Amino acid sequence: MRKIACLFVIGLFLWMPYIAIATDVPISDATAECIECHSSVHPGIVEGWQQSQHAKVTPQTAMAVNGLARKVSSKQVSDDLLTRAVGCAECHTQRSTAHADTFDHNGYDVHVVVSPKDCAICHAQEADQYSKNIMAHAFNNLAANPVYHLLQNSILGTPEPADEKKGSITIKPPNDATKAEACYYCHGTQLSVKGYETRDTEAAGELEFPIIAGWPNQGVGRINLDGSRGSCSACHTRHTFSIKMARKPYTCKECHTGPDVPAFKVYAASKHGNIFSSMNESWNFDTVPWTIGQDFTAPTCAACHVSLLINTDGEVVAERTHQMNSRLPWRIFGLIYAHPHPKEPDTTTIRNKNGQSLPTAFDGEFAAKYLITEKEMNIRKENMQAVCLSCHAATWVNGQWARFENTIQETNTKTLRATNIMNEIWHLNLADFKWKDTGPAGNPFDEAIEKKWSNTWLIYGNHIRFASAMGCGGDYGVFANGRYDLSKTFMEMADWLKARKRIFIQKGQP
Amino acid sequence: MRKIACLFVIGLFLWMPYIAIATDVPISDATAECIECHSSVHPGIVEGWQQSQHAKVTPQTAMAVNGLARKVSSKQVSDDLLTRAVGCAECHTQRSTAHADTFDHNGYDVHVVVSPKDCAICHAQEADQYSKNIMAHAFNNLAANPVYHLLQNSILGTPEPADEKKGSITIKPPNDATKAEACYYCHGTQLSVKGYETRDTEAAGELEFPIIAGWPNQGVGRINLDGSRGSCSACHTRHTFSIKMARKPYTCKECHTGPDVPAFKVYAASKHGNIFSSMNESWNFDTVPWTIGQDFTAPTCAACHVSLLINTDGEVVAERTHQMNSRLPWRIFGLIYAHPHPKEPDTTTIRNKNGQSLPTAFDGEFAAKYLITEKEMNIRKENMQAVCLSCHAATWVNGQWARFENTIQETNTKTLRATNIMNEIWHLNLADFKWKDTGPAGNPFDEAIEKKWSNTWLIYGNHIRFASAMGCGGDYGVFANGRYDLSKTFMEMADWLKARKRIFIQKGQP
Amino acid sequence: MRKIACLFVIGLFLWMPYIAIATDVPISDATAECIECHSSVHPGIVEGWQQSQHAKVTPQTAMAVNGLARKVSSKQVSDDLLTRAVGCAECHTQRSTAHADTFDHNGYDVHVVVSPKDCAICHAQEADQYSKNIMAHAFNNLAANPVYHLLQNSILGTPEPADEKKGSITIKPPNDATKAEACYYCHGTQLSVKGYETRDTEAAGELEFPIIAGWPNQGVGRINLDGSRGSCSACHTRHTFSIKMARKPYTCKECHTGPDVPAFKVYAASKHGNIFSSMNESWNFDTVPWTIGQDFTAPTCAACHVSLLINTDGEVVAERTHQMNSRLPWRIFGLIYAHPHPKEPDTTTIRNKNGQSLPTAFDGEFAAKYLITEKEMNIRKENMQAVCLSCHAATWVNGQWARFENTIQETNTKTLRATNIMNEIWHLNLADFKWKDTGPAGNPFDEAIEKKWSNTWLIYGNHIRFASAMGCGGDYGVFANGRYDLSKTFMEMADWLKARKRIFIQKGQP
Repeated sequence: MRKIACLFVIGLFLWMPYIAIATDVPISDATAECIECHSSVHPGIVEGWQQSQHAKVTPQTAMAVNGLARKVSSKQVSDDLLTRAVGCAECHTQRSTAHADTFDHNGYDVHVVVSPKDCAICHAQEADQYSKNIMAHAFNNLAANPVYHLLQNSILGTPEPADEKKGSITIKPPNDATKAEACYYCHGTQLSVKGYETRDTEAAGELEFPIIAGWPNQGVGRINLDGSRGSCSACHTRHTFSIKMARKPYTCKECHTGPDVPAFKVYAASKHGNIFSSMNESWNFDTVPWTIGQDFTAPTCAACHVSLLINTDGEVVAERTHQMNSRLPWRIFGLIYAHPHPKEPDTTTIRNKNGQSLPTAFDGEFAAKYLITEKEMNIRKENMQAVCLSCHAATWVNGQWARFENTIQETNTKTLRATNIMNEIWHLNLADFKWKDTGPAGNPFDEAIEKKWSNTWLIYGNHIRFASAMGCGGDYGVFANGRYDLSKTFMEMADWLKARKRIFIQKGQP
Repeated sequence: MRKIACLFVIGLFLWMPYIAIATDVPISDATAECIECHSSVHPGIVEGWQQSQHAKVTPQTAMAVNGLARKVSSKQVSDDLLTRAVGCAECHTQRSTAHADTFDHNGYDVHVVVSPKDCAICHAQEADQYSKNIMAHAFNNLAANPVYHLLQNSILGTPEPADEKKGSITIKPPNDATKAEACYYCHGTQLSVKGYETRDTEAAGELEFPIIAGWPNQGVGRINLDGSRGSCSACHTRHTFSIKMARKPYTCKECHTGPDVPAFKVYAASKHGNIFSSMNESWNFDTVPWTIGQDFTAPTCAACHVSLLINTDGEVVAERTHQMNSRLPWRIFGLIYAHPHPKEPDTTTIRNKNGQSLPTAFDGEFAAKYLITEKEMNIRKENMQAVCLSCHAATWVNGQWARFENTIQETNTKTLRATNIMNEIWHLNLADFKWKDTGPAGNPFDEAIEKKWSNTWLIYGNHIRFASAMGCGGDYGVFANGRYDLSKTFMEMADWLKARKRIFIQKGQP
Repeated sequence: MRKIACLFVIGLFLWMPYIAIATDVPISDATAECIECHSSVHPGIVEGWQQSQHAKVTPQTAMAVNGLARKVSSKQVSDDLLTRAVGCAECHTQRSTAHADTFDHNGYDVHVVVSPKDCAICHAQEADQYSKNIMAHAFNNLAANPVYHLLQNSILGTPEPADEKKGSITIKPPNDATKAEACYYCHGTQLSVKGYETRDTEAAGELEFPIIAGWPNQGVGRINLDGSRGSCSACHTRHTFSIKMARKPYTCKECHTGPDVPAFKVYAASKHGNIFSSMNESWNFDTVPWTIGQDFTAPTCAACHVSLLINTDGEVVAERTHQMNSRLPWRIFGLIYAHPHPKEPDTTTIRNKNGQSLPTAFDGEFAAKYLITEKEMNIRKENMQAVCLSCHAATWVNGQWARFENTIQETNTKTLRATNIMNEIWHLNLADFKWKDTGPAGNPFDEAIEKKWSNTWLIYGNHIRFASAMGCGGDYGVFANGRYDLSKTFMEMADWLKARKRIFIQKGQP
């Protein structure tokens, strides 16, 4: 009888790995005290955590795992943390003097915002890799770039009423609340403690809490209250921190669904996305390392870009990377032209030949000394192709890649053609922008015709390249923000120029 | 051996709660007679019903449940219904004299269209709440509003060929079939019996059936053949009436995916939507009440807007409501400006300061006496925030809400700026519309430039507000029908005006 | 004890039909030799195949099944294939002299690209049906149609820089790589062997492989290296060839998500799509034949268009068809006007009354002699309605269908109105196109205003008709590329014409 029950339980373990199992992992007194109130005040948080590995495994147990299956990458973890669950207090009271939002909460020095440096106590390698990830710099790369600043203001700002009667319209810059829920929702906000407030709480009467500007936010480049960059919970959703969730494409979708970065949409319509959507209910998203073919039969975002992958012989196909562009030679979105990835994650220091903080000039020329070399591009290409080759023959992979690089060339050329029209428009003063040694005169992104131009590269060029990269042709490569729209918009720009020349310049008869 | 079988069955019950189990619930003779033919003629209907609670539980059993778990809200149900399954005859022969489509069908007085009043026999409270839901009035609120009528005709109508050569184009109003599958697909049609027809049926030879204008339809504000409003099957899909389905966001998506009401799209790209998509396979969608954290770890549409929620201590966090705006202070879509919710679900009586049937004037001023008070807004805000606070600290929730109200202000201001451009265009007779005491002269929605204007609020303002409300910034708040498109369209309106002044008015040189 | 283990295994079989079970199906020596290297070189391929029916069942076993459950439709299969798994060698070394890409690979005559004729060895009926499917001709129907050629070049081509200063812009035709990942990604490429290359392989040192132009590709009308048309793996994804995947809508989404063919998007927002998304985890996607109500409770794409369906009495409701338009009287996308389906899958021979290779004239008149008759349309309508009637009464189905045909009329009329504006524009030489006896002068699809016109039918007309066909009104029927956009674009065309007359023609005052 016992054998049978055992058999049944093994069955459950095999097929239902996500079911929470009551465990005997001890929790610290501090965490126990947190849970006492918070389990009724915020049941979702506590229940979520109960389902996490943090509640089920102690660091000591996790560190006893050797080899590829090991999840705790730090070589040492202080004794006081080793033998207890990673609970509320273990994260929210660590490094208390480092966090500007640390406050006294029922006798504990608690900080609200947990940062990558807190997570690094156990996950040092991931935090280190992530610090080299361009995402970690997403706040400053946007906030401190004067060119992007012009783009941001043109999108988020509010037109001023008085100026509508003038030749040009003045845009009032957006306030912090708007910025925080728009661009910086994904890029991350800069957090700061603005003061303290007393709130009457149901559980414990009047209590004082810090007021944190920029909060809430889980953006990838958040500037934390200990000065660190990033938010692990952007992908490792609090408080379950499920690897399953991080490996599913819906996590990446939060910021990469488009139309500026249409990665998820394109994936979902690709053959890989079809296999995922149709079959993933029988995949295993929890195993580390992740075995190609056995645990999953088509890649998710994580498989190609992040995860540690092995083949069925146990050999490593791809190393885990939280730098994320380790397998990416080309940067195909967000900028005017596709280009080799920047060398450094801090892109504010880049200058193109005209002194603009852009990885290419307006004519497409690369700011080569700031970008990775061809050699590095080849290393990254090989890193990526190792994943492809697990399910595709070299003939297939080479053919696919040749098309992708052809498309980079094609879309860059088409963008140049559109930019040439803009140059004529700016030259004729039909729109207001010049780049001078002292910086921009006018904003190249804020007028109607300029926004048509930005569509060509910020929306359509991206879609075409993502569709090429992931093999999803007819939709996002053509009709859904692809070549159909790019060609339409190019022709509309030419049509606009032709008409405006007649309306405002009147040179000759047709 | 018996113990083992038992163990196995318990396993099945635990992990496979959705499997239909053969039960001993008696069915009425009438229903048995229905099933005899219809199980082969319409197997999908009968099989669907077999999987429903209606087939598995009698009203008597359901009414024996006390407390929060009770699903049958009526205090009394007539004896003849109590002890049998709720089958075909129990719904389709009730209140036969009240239904205009009642016809003799093999000796039974059958009506085709089941209405909320039929459902109210057992579910009185839900039907009562729903009658206060603005959705219940969705037919008339659209059909009887002269302003919306102009909008509807401009969208659904067909341009007349002869008039294309005149200054303006005449639009022929849409026919009933077009209206029924367009706006009224969701809003609901007005049903009426147009006559009877005889059809030769495979199962029973020649039979007579009513011809019902407006049928089929499952719109939320359908005018039924007993005069009642609404269609429960809009959300409680026939004939399984699964609470699981009603609680999943795909149900709401049927009418709220956009771009006029982009609720589903925004949800799907939000953190909540990610958690749902990644993890819901292990949630419990069937329990009543619904326990936060245990049954689900992130809200679906139903959790925030409809369902009875409890915390893990069994305390009520949110009461069930089929009024649906009980937790919503602001109405953020469908109208020119966001505004406090109307007091009454019948919005045809609203008049703004200019006598238009709109909750705000064209300049944004609220028709305050028809809208809920600040006090009521605060009650509804607290109802909603009680749900938020189950997984988020007050600091988080307050920060999120402050941004949301900032965004309402921001988008209303931007809409006003765009409307000011339209006002100048109308004033210069570059488009045709004036509001006179006697009503509209011209249609403010039917010309090219007017449609650009309607995009600013009907499409883009909505997206920005939904993205703010549900926390989904970079996509729907910016590039996917958000601020990027709003700013682009505003600039195109200004550009159009500037050019048209030169083309058609010719005042001065540039 | 044995009984219990048995019970447990039965449980697994019942609930986990997708789990790969170790079987005793013998594999050929050739296949064994393939697997020896490829299981570590391409683990995803080998693992995928292990999960396929091809690995688990021999043709002999499959052919022993009689009646509707039979999956192998060929009446005879050669003896050498009968008693072994359908492995690598069974597909990639068949008919070796017929394939231009056959090459010597470790002593075997291997071809890279498996074609429908290879699959036809066991699945003769499906291959035969598919050869009558218009999809099988998707390559040539696009590549050999001069009108489509103009459309393709206007979308995929690159504007030439020198010509931007002339009155019109010259478009440089796209190269093969661009075409292969754009239109021909779905339509299929034309494969050809361009030569051979030697690659240094990890497993076996230097080996020679064919270089295949047009590869990779899985488009539905691919021209294979044995001259056959199509790619079964477009829908039956290699190397698992799961019927489950083919029956789920994500497979069709790969090419039919829009906006040119918005089938998936519309389905996903429909009531059927809601039921699928909410409930399909408990459906059975593997049974043949597929029982309505029992195996599934709402149709997927396959249910309505392809699959063999039976009712719960075991009676056939719909025959399996790989012709796919056997249940479709109307062709509602891709062309200027909706029209009855072409008689022949090769549409290059069609000529309208003006000699254009189009199923209708520019004024909407059908090229009737090339299109199916009303009688055939009625047969196909009945085939489709048999599926509808499994879950809906005749009153419902007739009402739905009447609206659909009303919408075909409505959208064709609206397209005609837009085309009339284009005719005036062409007549006034404001855009460049005339159809002469010798063929087109100019391209009707390449200028800004012409692209607005193509939006009306290629994008918006389609959405409205798909929304009508599948019952999804308010979104894709109105605001999401539906009537809202159609009416907006029509008005923009009229507005453009009005302004351009003044700018370039200057006839009279306003």
